[in-house]
Amino acid sequence: MKTSTVIALDAMGGDHAPDSVVAGAALARERYPKIKFLFYGDEAQVKPLLDRHSILHASSELRHAPESISADLKPSLALRQGRNSSMRLALNAVAQDEAGSVVSAGNTGALMAMAKFVLKTLPGIDRPAIASLMPTKVGESVMLDLGANVECDAENLVQFALMGAIFCRTVLGISEPSVGLLNIGTEELKGHDEIRTAATILRERPFPGSFYGFVEGNDITSGTVDVIVTDGFSGNIALKTLEGTAQLMAYFLRQSFASSLTAKLGYVLVRNAMKKFKMRADPRRYNGAMFLGLQGVCVKSHGGTDHVGFANAIGVAHDLIDRRFNERIGEELARQYGVPAPAAPAVMPAEDIP
Amino acid sequence: MKTSTVIALDAMGGDHAPDSVVAGAALARERYPKIKFLFYGDEAQVKPLLDRHSILHASSELRHAPESISADLKPSLALRQGRNSSMRLALNAVAQDEAGSVVSAGNTGALMAMAKFVLKTLPGIDRPAIASLMPTKVGESVMLDLGANVECDAENLVQFALMGAIFCRTVLGISEPSVGLLNIGTEELKGHDEIRTAATILRERPFPGSFYGFVEGNDITSGTVDVIVTDGFSGNIALKTLEGTAQLMAYFLRQSFASSLTAKLGYVLVRNAMKKFKMRADPRRYNGAMFLGLQGVCVKSHGGTDHVGFANAIGVAHDLIDRRFNERIGEELARQYGVPAPAAPAVMPAEDIP
Repeated sequence: MKTSTVIALDAMGGDHAPDSVVAGAALARERYPKIKFLFYGDEAQVKPLLDRHSILHASSELRHAPESISADLKPSLALRQGRNSSMRLALNAVAQDEAGSVVSAGNTGALMAMAKFVLKTLPGIDRPAIASLMPTKVGESVMLDLGANVECDAENLVQFALMGAIFCRTVLGISEPSVGLLNIGTEELKGHDEIRTAATILRERPFPGSFYGFVEGNDITSGTVDVIVTDGFSGNIALKTLEGTAQLMAYFLRQSFASSLTAKLGYVLVRNAMKKFKMRADPRRYNGAMFLGLQGVCVKSHGGTDHVGFANAIGVAHDLIDRRFNERIGEELARQYGVPAPAAPAVMPAEDIP
Repeated sequence: MKTSTVIALDAMGGDHAPDSVVAGAALARERYPKIKFLFYGDEAQVKPLLDRHSILHASSELRHAPESISADLKPSLALRQGRNSSMRLALNAVAQDEAGSVVSAGNTGALMAMAKFVLKTLPGIDRPAIASLMPTKVGESVMLDLGANVECDAENLVQFALMGAIFCRTVLGISEPSVGLLNIGTEELKGHDEIRTAATILRERPFPGSFYGFVEGNDITSGTVDVIVTDGFSGNIALKTLEGTAQLMAYFLRQSFASSLTAKLGYVLVRNAMKKFKMRADPRRYNGAMFLGLQGVCVKSHGGTDHVGFANAIGVAHDLIDRRFNERIGEELARQYGVPAPAAPAVMPAEDIP
């Protein structure tokens, strides 16, 4: 197998695993016919599911993982106790160059802790961040961090800005991405010290994009900037508030249509318009959070998503490999800070893996 | 005038002031026929507007304020320089017992700084908080703080929980309100130290409600709890993300309906359903943020709202006076902490006002 087209999958992670993982892989294989999968999971559970999808037969390999990481296991314990887990073995496949990326819908904290340990952080990056595309009125923006780093200093935020800008350039094709720092007002005096210091640095330091200044919560969806930078606490709250509000609006809409016979009749005529609306507002479209700043591609699917959402997360992993995203971040960091860019994906000797 | 029915209005605050303030007052007067207004603002601008609304003639008094507070003035400067501003004079009317409450759509930071200085904080409360009703699938919840306190310690959060619970009891009529702390996960180990300490205190200390535990961003709109407690930074980001997402959904919906002739025809049949939807999702319905923890009622209207939104903010002020909200918080604090409840609204001697 050629590494760049191989994606390692944690078949046991997520609320609907392994069903949603296998069905999601089958759907992704239809979209990307060159893709191949390494499934890690309980053979007894996964094999019968794989047998059902003929599209996966020639393009997949199942490797037994005797353990799986539970949704509430502490990251530190997952790191120590989960050496034979489906999540860990899938990550090892990337570190050992058997796969070009890994996708998991399991425990986010455990996945980040293991990914940092197994794949290592890029030189010049102190902390990896979780990033995701967000829907806006004018297209999409990228927001980070979404929960990996509860406390961030100014330098962390500056590094997030850099990674977000390079992502926009390489994956989204935006040549001069604009970057905003999430705050509670646009005046210079607003917010925490870290944010104000980060703004000062970003105004001065050259980076591959332009610094817009502070943005507020409503700017996330209005598309004011291409990249929204924030600490993991605020970012996670914004992301989940956005998801919850979209659900609330859809709920209000369903209730309104169900409220009268005329509306029910009218629905027949507006059905296609409503389908378009649902498609644009569908959270599964935006599934697949990227762990940026690692020497390897790792994508986190929403734990509660179905096979459609999981297939989109696989699509995100595919794009990141295809665009050589990590290598480009490494090259940019080398240019910016003079740190050596990693020449090739880090391969970890088997004896170093705890 | 009987104080309890008099509302002091900052006629110059907000993007569409004084027009939206005067027209909003006229609309509120239709809803609450006993209400009277003290308008503070530039006589030359406000008088012609008042003349247009006959419903306000007998029930309003206009008092000239030679200055107004600009939207970007620093709170400390507003406090020192804004003694003759419409905002300040309106607040003085409450402190001097001429009005039962004040409503402003002006500079939030300046309003909070002045309100703390003029009205004073309730004994037992270290910092007032900004609270607002939020739409949920099952009705409404109250969230605080929405931006007054960027940094909060555990005790501040506990006091916010107490104020939110008393608000639910007295204004919303919920006898045993449930309170949740906004966090990025529901496990005990998640989040900042302050939040975890606040959770420990709330589990042990008796208060007028029940402590639910941690909630996440999506719980705000799903109605998991009656009260969502958070620091002002996270709360402001959640509030604005919610507003932005609701706008995005409405935008997607409009675009979908405009995309085909069939959908446009169908719209005629579903118009009433869409009206219901718009009414439920209308941000103006939720306009009117309450400054809780002061010895007087102060309501902040969204700066960008129109007269309909401003009328709703006046409605919030009316409800808070009517339910004797501040007195009840004072009584509860006295019960909880043994601090004396303020017997009557604090009247500030004229010479003490800087």
